[in-house]
Amino acid sequence: MPSYKAPSRDARFIINEVLKIEQYAALPGFAAATPDFVETVLEVAGKFAAEVIAPLNQIGDRQGCTRASDGSVTTPDGFKEAYAQFVASGWGTLSQPPEFGGQGLPHILAFAFEEFLSSANQSFGMYPGLTNGAASAILVKGSPEQMARYLPKMISGEWTGTKNLTEPQCGTDLGLIRTKAVPQADGSYAITGTKIFISAGEHDLAPNIIHLVLAKTPDAPDSTKGISLFIVPKFLLNEDGSPGARNAVSCGALEHKMGIHGNATCVMNYDGATGFLVGEENKGLAAMFIMMNAARLGVGMQGLAQAEVAYQNAVSYARERRQGRALTGPAEPDEKADPLFVHPDVRRMLMDAKAFNEGMRALALWGGLLVDLVHAAASEEERQAADDLIGLLTPVIKGYGTDKGYEVATNMQQVWGGHGYIAENGMEQFVRDARIAMIYEGANGVQAMDLVGRKLPANMGRAVQAFFALVDKECTESKEISALSDLATRGEKANGELKAATMWFMQNAMTNPNNAGAGAHHYMHIAGIVSLGLMWLRMGRTAAAALATGTGDAAFYQAKLTTARYYGERFTPDAGALRRKIEAGAEAMMALPVEAFATA
Amino acid sequence: MPSYKAPSRDARFIINEVLKIEQYAALPGFAAATPDFVETVLEVAGKFAAEVIAPLNQIGDRQGCTRASDGSVTTPDGFKEAYAQFVASGWGTLSQPPEFGGQGLPHILAFAFEEFLSSANQSFGMYPGLTNGAASAILVKGSPEQMARYLPKMISGEWTGTKNLTEPQCGTDLGLIRTKAVPQADGSYAITGTKIFISAGEHDLAPNIIHLVLAKTPDAPDSTKGISLFIVPKFLLNEDGSPGARNAVSCGALEHKMGIHGNATCVMNYDGATGFLVGEENKGLAAMFIMMNAARLGVGMQGLAQAEVAYQNAVSYARERRQGRALTGPAEPDEKADPLFVHPDVRRMLMDAKAFNEGMRALALWGGLLVDLVHAAASEEERQAADDLIGLLTPVIKGYGTDKGYEVATNMQQVWGGHGYIAENGMEQFVRDARIAMIYEGANGVQAMDLVGRKLPANMGRAVQAFFALVDKECTESKEISALSDLATRGEKANGELKAATMWFMQNAMTNPNNAGAGAHHYMHIAGIVSLGLMWLRMGRTAAAALATGTGDAAFYQAKLTTARYYGERFTPDAGALRRKIEAGAEAMMALPVEAFATA
Repeated sequence: MPSYKAPSRDARFIINEVLKIEQYAALPGFAAATPDFVETVLEVAGKFAAEVIAPLNQIGDRQGCTRASDGSVTTPDGFKEAYAQFVASGWGTLSQPPEFGGQGLPHILAFAFEEFLSSANQSFGMYPGLTNGAASAILVKGSPEQMARYLPKMISGEWTGTKNLTEPQCGTDLGLIRTKAVPQADGSYAITGTKIFISAGEHDLAPNIIHLVLAKTPDAPDSTKGISLFIVPKFLLNEDGSPGARNAVSCGALEHKMGIHGNATCVMNYDGATGFLVGEENKGLAAMFIMMNAARLGVGMQGLAQAEVAYQNAVSYARERRQGRALTGPAEPDEKADPLFVHPDVRRMLMDAKAFNEGMRALALWGGLLVDLVHAAASEEERQAADDLIGLLTPVIKGYGTDKGYEVATNMQQVWGGHGYIAENGMEQFVRDARIAMIYEGANGVQAMDLVGRKLPANMGRAVQAFFALVDKECTESKEISALSDLATRGEKANGELKAATMWFMQNAMTNPNNAGAGAHHYMHIAGIVSLGLMWLRMGRTAAAALATGTGDAAFYQAKLTTARYYGERFTPDAGALRRKIEAGAEAMMALPVEAFATA
Repeated sequence: MPSYKAPSRDARFIINEVLKIEQYAALPGFAAATPDFVETVLEVAGKFAAEVIAPLNQIGDRQGCTRASDGSVTTPDGFKEAYAQFVASGWGTLSQPPEFGGQGLPHILAFAFEEFLSSANQSFGMYPGLTNGAASAILVKGSPEQMARYLPKMISGEWTGTKNLTEPQCGTDLGLIRTKAVPQADGSYAITGTKIFISAGEHDLAPNIIHLVLAKTPDAPDSTKGISLFIVPKFLLNEDGSPGARNAVSCGALEHKMGIHGNATCVMNYDGATGFLVGEENKGLAAMFIMMNAARLGVGMQGLAQAEVAYQNAVSYARERRQGRALTGPAEPDEKADPLFVHPDVRRMLMDAKAFNEGMRALALWGGLLVDLVHAAASEEERQAADDLIGLLTPVIKGYGTDKGYEVATNMQQVWGGHGYIAENGMEQFVRDARIAMIYEGANGVQAMDLVGRKLPANMGRAVQAFFALVDKECTESKEISALSDLATRGEKANGELKAATMWFMQNAMTNPNNAGAGAHHYMHIAGIVSLGLMWLRMGRTAAAALATGTGDAAFYQAKLTTARYYGERFTPDAGALRRKIEAGAEAMMALPVEAFATA
């Protein structure tokens, strides 16, 4: 059975030492997040994820969820008890607002925990993850009464939440939604329609499920401008707020999926269910994006999470499994063969994983901090700067993070050779689970278009210009540290490729917008490479400083410098190749008639 | 349910028009392979694969194989009947020697059929595939009596074969084999040991299974120099050659795997089973490599095969599924949304697939032709040249072909969005099935070391020098064709990167062999990029000539030229990035102590 240990030390390094969140102690919520407190939370959170949740991962994959003929859904053995423990320990409340029972801690801590939970068991982590998303929409767009009725139970985790967007004919293009919402005399709406791919749509973990549903009112415009958002509780609330009458919403079927078997992916049928409008009619898309953006960062974390747990198990195997001899001569001559670790190509895969995982963790946690600063920073200017950056980085964290997360999980399976293909060993589950993260919450091609079509041009490119400046400054300052000068030079070059690609879009997308579409995915990857390079420089500078002052833990910091160098050598060269692909434009890509793709 | 149509037209284009096998008509076996005959074989083979075998693919995945308590194994519904039809139609005999019942046709035709069969149903295709490999070892290393007793039934497909290498403690490193072979008074050997991951080790398709087993005789050297190869039939043969007494070999368990569920992956227990030595004692490794090399080309074909069938189903979906609008304005304004095909990022994935699949098909079929020329070419010089090239290209076809095949299958699943993750739609099966090809028959890291450590330095680099010259010549000649000049320039540049990387190994691997190991995988990918570039130039020249002479089918040839251009734009830039990674060497990769990989 695969094992998992939360990378608490590494998360602590990033939060306390690299991002130095102590410096924000004056901001709301940050005062409590002292270095010691952060350390304790990470340790306890890591223990919970590793000891309570991780042991259910393989069970969840094998059993999956089951739907009875009455539409009720049973989660895999142990999920219910573990979820009760999750609620009892208050893990869902970490960064939620105190007025609804939250602990009011910085989001960055909840983000760190999200990684641990998702590594331990992605399917399990999705139940509270979706609750979070639903709660965040009510928190921003709900009425005071809605907040009071729903948020305390959702934030505690006593009730869970869902997000109902997709319909059979409607995925990315939400303008195609057909679910109807007909106003009723009492101010509620009757919701009728079918939603598919609804994660955690029905289950036995909680006594109530609060569905957030996109639907169209009868006279709404037939486009994304005609979408409204509704709260549709599984059980309507009594006056006192307790669950009362069963609402006309039910799970019609469970999907059979490649992975995340432990999470119930439901077809949800709404048959005149009672729904309550959130915010204004026809303004549902904006509310949906609140759920979406938080969810996208969480999904990026999932990419990292599967890469991390797969990496840990590949490391164990590479240490234990003996096969062949080192190219430089037997490393352990008394044994019949050397451990896999001696083979450069095994090292390559492990170092790629290490460089990606640690860099991605830093990027995602920085993203968490930016989310905090959007709300909490002292000045409007700082809040705006944080908002610009996180807006730009969200599609990168989601898209690059999950593309690479899947690639790393696949490579870690490769380290296991034939044994990686065998279900019992668990490596192939990591790959299957990681696969969904590239698809849901906006497929990665949609992320790429969000980045290139929306985030780049916004405010005349203000966000990306700020990002360029940030990277250049980091490179310049890092060049003076000899252990980092190679990475700094390479990072600067990669940043130059990103700038050139940006310029190319500016010059060529106006005449033909397909030129932007044709390069968007590559651009997202360059942005990912540069972003992780930035984080590796920051980590490297922190490590170099720690080594210089001799704070102890020298091996840890030395490994950071070596991995930073490796990152520069093996990740940054792709930026130039990607830029050249972008500059090829859309012509050959779009030239063929559709018939040319038919097999003859 | 996914669909499949064999790309017979494309295979015919490659065999008849690009490789022009008509020119070899004077060589043994080639006389029959006239263009018309090739066309007919491809059409009938394609029909058989698509109509008889493909419909069983999803059934096989869902049902898997089942083992009864007596060790017998049942294949999924329909496999037995389909296999009987396979045998009755003589599909296994295509390129086998006439003296044992084969049709004696060029291997290239059997290769083309292998792709179709594997696209239709990889699990099914493995049964005859393994038989082929086992037969080839007997054909080269067996005694005349062994050939006479086993080959006719194996070549007809009446009996199947297996290859038993792997043991629990022994994968790549065959020196670790523990299975014992004790000589008996009658000249046979008693074989005892456990073999794992034995594909098609036990099943209900054939009345006998001929296992080829690597084992060690009692006084053999404890290394790869002490391995012998044995024939161990499931049923020992009577004097008249009919299956007689049950041998002491049995299936102890079936593995539960990520994919290829329709193929029985067995733990095989040998309990003093009667085995017959093939060739000489301690010379088993050489015989094994005969099976291996043929198998590796076949596995490369599997990478292409899954990419191809996944591509076909992604194309269908992209034509039918409507979501969003073209960036350039509504393509079909009367519909509520445009088909996915209008979106550049969807096109990118489809064009990547098209460029890889058609290029890879050309490379693999050229490989098939080279296998023929190794045996059949008129002069020793030509035979040697063919042998050099196919030796060099085998790890490229296997390693690059399966890495990219998996990547393409994953991207084709991505085209389907959320629906690609749903089992019923079949896209995720292609990914799971494709995954094994990167692992078995020598994991791709082993292929990379075979290329860099064995094939490059052999005969002072004769093979790779010949390859460089071939590519340069093709580039020079193609530059004169305007539609190909961009690809020719880019191909020449990529070939330059390959030369530079080769030179770098020569200069740096002597002092530290890890420098070769650290870059081997990247080198294999550059070699793949250059090889497919070579094939695209050849295909492009053929297409340009056909267009110039107006032979008809202009859309087909025009699509080749456009796809060739796309290949140059989107595949060749990676060669430079890979070279830079190689030149980073092994230092940072190998620097960290193993403890630095432990999670803290």
